[in-house]
Amino acid sequence: MNFYRPIKFKITFLTILISFAAGNAQKLNQIQLDSLSKKYAKSSLPLLKELLSIPNDAFYAADIEKNIKWCESAFGKRGFTTTRIETETVPLLLAERNHKKATKTVLIYLQIDGQPVDSTRWFQKSAYTPALKKKNAKDDWEEVAWIDMKGFEDDWRVFARSASDAKGPVAMFLTALDATEELKISPNYNIKVIMDFEEELGSPQLPKAVIENKDLLTADMLIIFDGPRHITNRPTLTFGARGIATLQLTTYGPSVPQHSGHFGNYAPNPALRLSKLLASMKDDDGRVTIEGFYDGIAIDEATEKVLKAVPDNERQIQERLQIAATDKVGNYYQEAIQYPSLNIRGMQSGWINEKVRTIIPGWARAEIDVRLVLESDPTRLLNLIKEHIENEGYLVLDREPTKNERLEYAKIATITSEISYQSFRTDFDSEAGLWLTKALKNAFGEDPIRIRMSGGSIPISPFVTTLNIPAVTVPTVNRDNNQHSPNENLRLGNYREGIQTMIAILNEKL
Amino acid sequence: MNFYRPIKFKITFLTILISFAAGNAQKLNQIQLDSLSKKYAKSSLPLLKELLSIPNDAFYAADIEKNIKWCESAFGKRGFTTTRIETETVPLLLAERNHKKATKTVLIYLQIDGQPVDSTRWFQKSAYTPALKKKNAKDDWEEVAWIDMKGFEDDWRVFARSASDAKGPVAMFLTALDATEELKISPNYNIKVIMDFEEELGSPQLPKAVIENKDLLTADMLIIFDGPRHITNRPTLTFGARGIATLQLTTYGPSVPQHSGHFGNYAPNPALRLSKLLASMKDDDGRVTIEGFYDGIAIDEATEKVLKAVPDNERQIQERLQIAATDKVGNYYQEAIQYPSLNIRGMQSGWINEKVRTIIPGWARAEIDVRLVLESDPTRLLNLIKEHIENEGYLVLDREPTKNERLEYAKIATITSEISYQSFRTDFDSEAGLWLTKALKNAFGEDPIRIRMSGGSIPISPFVTTLNIPAVTVPTVNRDNNQHSPNENLRLGNYREGIQTMIAILNEKL
Repeated sequence: MNFYRPIKFKITFLTILISFAAGNAQKLNQIQLDSLSKKYAKSSLPLLKELLSIPNDAFYAADIEKNIKWCESAFGKRGFTTTRIETETVPLLLAERNHKKATKTVLIYLQIDGQPVDSTRWFQKSAYTPALKKKNAKDDWEEVAWIDMKGFEDDWRVFARSASDAKGPVAMFLTALDATEELKISPNYNIKVIMDFEEELGSPQLPKAVIENKDLLTADMLIIFDGPRHITNRPTLTFGARGIATLQLTTYGPSVPQHSGHFGNYAPNPALRLSKLLASMKDDDGRVTIEGFYDGIAIDEATEKVLKAVPDNERQIQERLQIAATDKVGNYYQEAIQYPSLNIRGMQSGWINEKVRTIIPGWARAEIDVRLVLESDPTRLLNLIKEHIENEGYLVLDREPTKNERLEYAKIATITSEISYQSFRTDFDSEAGLWLTKALKNAFGEDPIRIRMSGGSIPISPFVTTLNIPAVTVPTVNRDNNQHSPNENLRLGNYREGIQTMIAILNEKL
Repeated sequence: MNFYRPIKFKITFLTILISFAAGNAQKLNQIQLDSLSKKYAKSSLPLLKELLSIPNDAFYAADIEKNIKWCESAFGKRGFTTTRIETETVPLLLAERNHKKATKTVLIYLQIDGQPVDSTRWFQKSAYTPALKKKNAKDDWEEVAWIDMKGFEDDWRVFARSASDAKGPVAMFLTALDATEELKISPNYNIKVIMDFEEELGSPQLPKAVIENKDLLTADMLIIFDGPRHITNRPTLTFGARGIATLQLTTYGPSVPQHSGHFGNYAPNPALRLSKLLASMKDDDGRVTIEGFYDGIAIDEATEKVLKAVPDNERQIQERLQIAATDKVGNYYQEAIQYPSLNIRGMQSGWINEKVRTIIPGWARAEIDVRLVLESDPTRLLNLIKEHIENEGYLVLDREPTKNERLEYAKIATITSEISYQSFRTDFDSEAGLWLTKALKNAFGEDPIRIRMSGGSIPISPFVTTLNIPAVTVPTVNRDNNQHSPNENLRLGNYREGIQTMIAILNEKL
């Protein structure tokens, strides 16, 4: 997966600098961008290291405050004015910089907080003490002294919480700003940067904050610097993401667990009830059988072409997952994620393994997530599920049943649900799409891989809906980055090409 | 549920003693037995208290040793010779006493160990510091000083671990031996008492120990002093119990949990797979739909008469369980437990509640227990389940699948199973059945409630099978005794009538 292509033409930074500083400012070409990325990737490693050294678990407000201060300082130094957008918890941070002759404004979304850390499972001093590592002869990751960082190679990696998700992109962007500053390149658009310090908590304050600060955030488009590139690690643009709603379903047996000897064959078993309900919702191939669930989605010829242009290796994906067959919602991976999903993310009744007890459990519970696409109205989908359960003969409540209800209704289910946020999707040939495609093509000499929809969800629809602007994600990090897990890392080749990508975007006329 | 009937004829212990000691020994009648039970229930409370004060969680061998020593001493003092039957863990204890003119031998099974204790949930100093309690005006349990115990009433209770399960019956039996000794009543049969110190662990050493000590244990019948009476709290005899086998079923999704956004609609969900399998095994009314599962069981007219003679109040049972309808394996409670059951006792996949993660889980697991009746060959039933799963298109393994198997087979299930022990059932009109029925009728003036089968399982079939003898359970304790739970207790009226029952049995000619 090493995409780095050796550049044969050796050019020096000085050549570029002289050329640009002299006012012969043209657009940077691929060779120049490549050269710049090498120089700045190396010189900015201390910045990356410093940023990754600040603990950023959003559960700890004092740590988050340090991150906010760092960002205020970093953007302040680079000519941005910063504004804290206060919320009920920690603020969002807005940084703005206007440029001469600019007529448009690009809003950039950055995520600063990181997932919690299980420090026992990290193979280094701390998740907040970034470790530079390379593979040794035994194919193990071995630490390299930071002092040697200038000799780095693309396949070395920085291990730290948020290295990829998503402080790495923050450092790339700041570095790209520095490079353009030194070259006296000024974007022809104004920049607003909105920084989220609660993304890993699901950005609970974001939708309200965007509505209340609509004017402050006004822009022509939104770019998200987050997420991994396509699995081939080639330059990628992502034009949408599924939204997400969640649902909790509980069925009931006897009011308290009962001895399975005394009551087996007599007291109804809630785990069987739940199993029957779940089994009734999907067929053997994972297709939702609730009528109307996929309504409104049609993959036309043009879309199919777009989906099939993504160079997925289905066999490779299946080998990685170790599955012999896939669900049959779509015919291939990219098609599958154009549809809403209904996934059992958790299920429990009684106890298993060493905790097992010989009982008829009192209840059984399934946690379900419903990934949404633009065509699916989340309220409608959740209602379809609820109606389906009612049609199976259940009294459906949004709370636990009372004793009287238990004695009156043979089948009772409790459903609670939450719509986190909706999907978003931007056309490939929108202004934002065409512009970013052009920038990436200029940086890497070929069209980026363009993904119509990411299967996962990001809290972008509040911007898209409230500000009425298109959004495109520019992913840069390596896919095997252990995001959300111990030993998260960022491949230095991806860091370098991320800087290259962002310089190209800053340099691209809008 | 107060069954105690006031006896109008006041007789003194002295009258009985004189009558028996003078050699006018006839059979004790109901009035005499009632009077004796009152005297000895009071006088033996210190014995009960002492026995309950010895911690008896079988997990702690040193505590168990104290219990063994106590039993050796208690039976030794009463003219029994004791033998430790060594096993790989703690011994079983055999106590024997022969009687003049005896031609038959009755083997009595007593359980000495108790369930573990969660001391935070007991409303007294300790589960091993027995507390005497009575209901106060607010209907709460209130402690009574042990010094006042002689004024006790039937509805007072002793709270302690094993008060009911099953040290209470041990104290009743020792007290009954003392009463007959004082009256110079000698049973006309020899007595062997086998004491189990690992019953709550599932008596893992018992089957082997019985086989290896077959000659030592030879007897004509087995009586088990354990378990609660029928819910009406009237004198009860139980003639059988279901056996038990267990099965663990696991289905598989991706080899490790996957992001449900990226792979929802693509990677098969193991919780759905498991739900479909479980749903396919039983119908909506809880009847197993696997062909042959109920083969060989027929409730004939005579059996139906026996079952219907049990004074169950179905509505009351359902109210207690808080269920509006029951499974439809039988038409009523006693019929339901004449059939084998297939019960989901536990189920898990991914996480629920505050631990929920937005994933496609890597596996889903169900724990199943199969209660057995005499007609069900456990191996055959377990095979039926396995074949059913194979017929659903699964590769069935007894271990985790390998990567190659995962890549080759779309549906894989792992099944492991264990047959704990088989069912036993004794005829009502067997010698043991008729003899015990006669003894209880003599003690209480009416036929006992006779239960064909208890739904739960007790480790009695090793005796029944190896020694080829019939077994009958003589339950004595109150059903609402919180067995296995915090605040286990024994109603003093049940303690008293238990003593009455056991004196009557010792006094009944065999």
